[in-house]
Amino acid sequence: MDSQMHILKAVEDRFGGVVIDSLSLPYDASVFVDSLKYSLTQWKVQGKRGVWLKLPLDLSHLVHPAIQEGFNYHHAESTHLMLVTWLASDVPSTIPANASHQVGVGAFVLNNKHEILAVQEKSGVFQGAGIWKMPTGSVNQGEDIFAGAIREVKEETGIDTEFVEVIGFRQSHKVAFEKSDIFFLCVLRPLTSEITIQDSELTAVKWMPLAEYRDQAYLKQRKLLKKMLEVCIATTEEPGYKGFQIRDMQAGATGRRPQYFYYNAVDCQE
Amino acid sequence: MDSQMHILKAVEDRFGGVVIDSLSLPYDASVFVDSLKYSLTQWKVQGKRGVWLKLPLDLSHLVHPAIQEGFNYHHAESTHLMLVTWLASDVPSTIPANASHQVGVGAFVLNNKHEILAVQEKSGVFQGAGIWKMPTGSVNQGEDIFAGAIREVKEETGIDTEFVEVIGFRQSHKVAFEKSDIFFLCVLRPLTSEITIQDSELTAVKWMPLAEYRDQAYLKQRKLLKKMLEVCIATTEEPGYKGFQIRDMQAGATGRRPQYFYYNAVDCQE
Repeated sequence: MDSQMHILKAVEDRFGGVVIDSLSLPYDASVFVDSLKYSLTQWKVQGKRGVWLKLPLDLSHLVHPAIQEGFNYHHAESTHLMLVTWLASDVPSTIPANASHQVGVGAFVLNNKHEILAVQEKSGVFQGAGIWKMPTGSVNQGEDIFAGAIREVKEETGIDTEFVEVIGFRQSHKVAFEKSDIFFLCVLRPLTSEITIQDSELTAVKWMPLAEYRDQAYLKQRKLLKKMLEVCIATTEEPGYKGFQIRDMQAGATGRRPQYFYYNAVDCQE
Repeated sequence: MDSQMHILKAVEDRFGGVVIDSLSLPYDASVFVDSLKYSLTQWKVQGKRGVWLKLPLDLSHLVHPAIQEGFNYHHAESTHLMLVTWLASDVPSTIPANASHQVGVGAFVLNNKHEILAVQEKSGVFQGAGIWKMPTGSVNQGEDIFAGAIREVKEETGIDTEFVEVIGFRQSHKVAFEKSDIFFLCVLRPLTSEITIQDSELTAVKWMPLAEYRDQAYLKQRKLLKKMLEVCIATTEEPGYKGFQIRDMQAGATGRRPQYFYYNAVDCQE
């Protein structure tokens, strides 16, 4: 066997492991298996620890052979599957965990007539119950929490807003696929007033007097939703409620992507 | 073909889709493919939308056949791979996104001598730099944020603590495998004082005068870490800094798992 021909192309990571180059993998399963076996032997001798193998969808025929050679699933996205194996039998695995949380947002949007932006949903637990709630949604991968809140309000109601603060958050477990969920309750200030409903998700949107919203019967039964509304209302009253505002910690650093720290900037002035 | 024999066992989900029963899948790949083809045809006629297929590690030989029949990867854990296909060509896919975030915690632990619990790490960006930092770690899947902070401090330093509040959080993107990360800065109150170092991760742990900790040169270069420490210090001064405390929103409901809401309970009294 010519070792030059058979070792898989890979780069070292900074944790003593290697990442196999997906683009140069042999397409043929038996060639792949021979190369993989040989490579794993070499890497083990070299003292490598974790070995990462990313298989795009069009190489799914290599998944089973890789599992046979000792790989486990690590995570997957629609386009690829990431597998990993730990070669250092004398060292506990330090393979990082997969992503564990989804992130959601809810938006408290109050206009200067003391009306709350309220929606009725087509699906979900409140489907068809005639219940008015705040706009909510999921934060996309790579999206900032405050930006997700602004986007969801715009998509669902057509209202432009600016972010004021996060006033609380709720963590739940085993929400979807055993993953947890963090829901951030945000205050947004409306910049426009004319509603454009998102028909695909909602049956109704309106500006609703806050007192009328608060009087809805379902809130009396639901401790968390009731408390969330109390916190929202606390932000409208004197002396006021202080949540977490945002500051870009990369501000002034050229070429850096913004990085937001959320904290009570009222109680911790610059 | 006897349709009774070939349709895969599945249950309906509440979104108009079906979840194939993993435990009753045929082991033989060709039997599996025949049954899958037939089942998909039937489900399409019935107007089903998403079809979920969870393949445990020992059925990895069925991954490639499933992809050939139109499935995509959805997510994976070490024990299994979840695949999904969308049958309703006239309706946009509403398949939920995979988990998008990791969650981390950092702990500000100050004793009554105004000393901060500080650690030096074996690995990471500060490796070997002689830098003292606060204990940090990852929140496990299914673990509460406050519990993760208490656990990490105990594991790393041996100190027992109780949770006081979250005083800020930072969201970062593309941290690991394109996923985002939310880091919660927590204040914990120490209940014990005797340190037991976690040798595998740390080179040193000590109670360090807060003024000395704050004077470390690296903090001057790092805007985010500097700001985080300012917020920590603000919690020790009058009139004080208000973060988010926790309340169990299932308290009093028997048989329910606790569900914690984090908010400024000082500014929004019961």
